[in-house]
Amino acid sequence: MQISGIETRTIRKVTSLDTSDEEDLLAAEEPLEISISYFEGEKSVKKSISVTMRTPGHDDELALGFLFTEGIIKSKSQVKQVSANVLDENKMSVYLHEGQIPNLNTSERNFYTTSSCGVCGKASIDAIKTTSLYSLQLDDIIIPRDIIFSLAVQLKKQQEIFESTGGLHASALFDLAGNFLCLREDVGRHNALDKIIGFTFNQNNLPLTNRILLLSGRASFELIQKASMAGIRVVAAIGAPSSLAVQLAEESNITLIGFLGKEKFNIYSGFHRISEL
Amino acid sequence: MQISGIETRTIRKVTSLDTSDEEDLLAAEEPLEISISYFEGEKSVKKSISVTMRTPGHDDELALGFLFTEGIIKSKSQVKQVSANVLDENKMSVYLHEGQIPNLNTSERNFYTTSSCGVCGKASIDAIKTTSLYSLQLDDIIIPRDIIFSLAVQLKKQQEIFESTGGLHASALFDLAGNFLCLREDVGRHNALDKIIGFTFNQNNLPLTNRILLLSGRASFELIQKASMAGIRVVAAIGAPSSLAVQLAEESNITLIGFLGKEKFNIYSGFHRISEL
Repeated sequence: MQISGIETRTIRKVTSLDTSDEEDLLAAEEPLEISISYFEGEKSVKKSISVTMRTPGHDDELALGFLFTEGIIKSKSQVKQVSANVLDENKMSVYLHEGQIPNLNTSERNFYTTSSCGVCGKASIDAIKTTSLYSLQLDDIIIPRDIIFSLAVQLKKQQEIFESTGGLHASALFDLAGNFLCLREDVGRHNALDKIIGFTFNQNNLPLTNRILLLSGRASFELIQKASMAGIRVVAAIGAPSSLAVQLAEESNITLIGFLGKEKFNIYSGFHRISEL
Repeated sequence: MQISGIETRTIRKVTSLDTSDEEDLLAAEEPLEISISYFEGEKSVKKSISVTMRTPGHDDELALGFLFTEGIIKSKSQVKQVSANVLDENKMSVYLHEGQIPNLNTSERNFYTTSSCGVCGKASIDAIKTTSLYSLQLDDIIIPRDIIFSLAVQLKKQQEIFESTGGLHASALFDLAGNFLCLREDVGRHNALDKIIGFTFNQNNLPLTNRILLLSGRASFELIQKASMAGIRVVAAIGAPSSLAVQLAEESNITLIGFLGKEKFNIYSGFHRISEL
């Protein structure tokens, strides 16, 4: 049985004292193939871009968010339709309007790929800078620390599936006053973020200049890359950031917060956007 | 500054009462390009297989483990040499002996890819069954629950980098009596497991029939796929498994344990290998 991202299953619970077989809830995981469809002259072309293991639900947002954060599509005005294959809901296609061409130039698109100067974090960061549509150089916001403290508490309230399965990552958006706007969950942390960004893409609300992004786990390079592509200036994570995530945040002028709890957090880059006492 | 997987950085620590700038440790993250080099007749061919974001260290094991768990190489006897590019330590190549051909058939190799019957977990599982070298159908082991309880405690002792940065995933191997054998850490959980499997590949110790694999976080499909390829029959995770991880474990006859703590755990598949009271 499957209800919106959750499956039930009989498991065996073991303690040092006893054993019991019980019904339990699991986070659902299934592959999703993302394709893009467009016209080359008169001819309709469909290209498979990626297969990702995801938790079913909000698949249209996932497809849009993925294609946007990879630099393949740029705005909602390019998109005619997003739909699943009628015979296979694990195949999702984004259809572009006639005359709209996706950016499939892999040298710009694949942020991890090799460059003439070698494979390194610096080259990956430069590739993102070339591809990103938005500048994050504006420094017109200062957020009181109390608003940051409040985010972790709010995430916990919203993250219901996580509570029941313990197996999902979440991404959530807040406004600069700390009001909760939207949450998405997935077995893959990159998918949860693609879904959030796809949601705002679909609403024509990009760039997310006046939003705070909250991540339920660690902050890797890939997540900061996606945040940067969406124009997000403040990212807070419950877990630790990696070295390259911090480096990209600094070069993109993103304020990156880690180890966020109710009463403390660390700032890794963009210190100036969080108020002193 | 970088010392074996760790970088230091000045960060701002914020509490509800004060602010201080301090030196802190971050888990290092850098891209690694994995290539395979072999002979087609007289001609030497080099193919780039993947770029992964990883924590530097044990890169030779990562390359071997990745190529093995993807079904591209089968045994150590095929491998002549593993070495980094002299000019770029983020480029790692595996060189095969003359006459040895890698299995680059993507339809078998890419376990998430589309099949004629559609994209689904079932097709992914079938692809792994086709590719895997080892049978896990032997049922000759029963492990006392106390040994399972002891693993989480041992992992905590071993996982030093994690303790200092909070940002690394770990994979560890134990024998069936619960003795610790080996641990690898990485910002990517799949990389930590590839490093462990690459380590044993390099020692000619595959399949890992008489080993317990311990995962520091959640158990996704991808991790159980790699465990299955390495012939591991018992996998224990500190976090939750996904639905497809459980399904693959069941079909591969792997005992999958989740939410492992000092005094309790859940068994999701292969109940029979863990002793009753």
